[in-house]
Amino acid sequence: MSSSDSHRARSTQHTIVGIDPGLHRTGYAILSEHGGTPKLRDAGVIRIERQEPLHVRLAELSEGVDAILKEWRPDAMTCEELYSHYRHPRTAILMGHARGVILARAAANGLKLLGVSATRAKKTLTGHGRATKEQMQRAVAMALRLPVLPEPHDVADAIAIGLCGLLIRREGALVGGSGAER
Amino acid sequence: MSSSDSHRARSTQHTIVGIDPGLHRTGYAILSEHGGTPKLRDAGVIRIERQEPLHVRLAELSEGVDAILKEWRPDAMTCEELYSHYRHPRTAILMGHARGVILARAAANGLKLLGVSATRAKKTLTGHGRATKEQMQRAVAMALRLPVLPEPHDVADAIAIGLCGLLIRREGALVGGSGAER
Repeated sequence: MSSSDSHRARSTQHTIVGIDPGLHRTGYAILSEHGGTPKLRDAGVIRIERQEPLHVRLAELSEGVDAILKEWRPDAMTCEELYSHYRHPRTAILMGHARGVILARAAANGLKLLGVSATRAKKTLTGHGRATKEQMQRAVAMALRLPVLPEPHDVADAIAIGLCGLLIRREGALVGGSGAER
Repeated sequence: MSSSDSHRARSTQHTIVGIDPGLHRTGYAILSEHGGTPKLRDAGVIRIERQEPLHVRLAELSEGVDAILKEWRPDAMTCEELYSHYRHPRTAILMGHARGVILARAAANGLKLLGVSATRAKKTLTGHGRATKEQMQRAVAMALRLPVLPEPHDVADAIAIGLCGLLIRREGALVGGSGAER
């Protein structure tokens, strides 16, 4: 393979990062697609100490996300959308703080963004918008042919969100489409 | 003045940045205190284009805040707290995105953070928690002996929030006190 072929192979092998945002635990998953088959390349949790003041926790989250983006260089991010009917509005606002920091790092690293609601992720992967956590874990394991169920839940959720991103991009909705979040 | 005196003079002349956060317009004010007298050193608005995707706007806001912090090197930030009874919960969540980005830059630049609610800022400056925008503008102008009322409103609000920070720090509540936001 010539170097230009190699370059083309890399540039067409899109990598996506799925994020399940949180102020204490943020799940992430790195996924790519090879010949139409999704492949899980990495997944984990960014943990932030609860004792730190809010702004310090947000800076740590920003650095944690940045390190993952610089290591894996995905070209797009799907980040779970926050729903506005949280029981405690204060929680929704604080979650917004965390998600804002994550999205800013996505843009700073040149990623495209696609918001995916938890309901859409569930429906895309299981056919049911109200799938249980265990149903989601099984669907994710099946789609990726994983030998075991992904654990913990926030990692499974991040994988599911990343898988949705792959599917949505396959539909061509990502680039300039109506899927981009505003 | 010897160089060590000069160093001490700088290190005791605390500078604070007051922020009125927003996704389209973020007001800021740089304030310092000289012998108990607050002094306004700079104020303005960071404007972000509405047409850009959300994550790009957040990255621009992050850069805008960072540039101001690096220029003025304040040691503390007061950033208006978001109240959880917005008419539209989605608005509160989006405002949370913007505020999260701002707070993360504060921590990355080593600033202390003190959250100030709009009600507290109004009460501190005018004695009334429900002061009108014009009352706030007049109170700010009086406290800083400004020859004209500060305009626009988001700049006046940022100045008011910064002034609150100066007052709260004078009370000794900032460093390790109960005022730190968690």
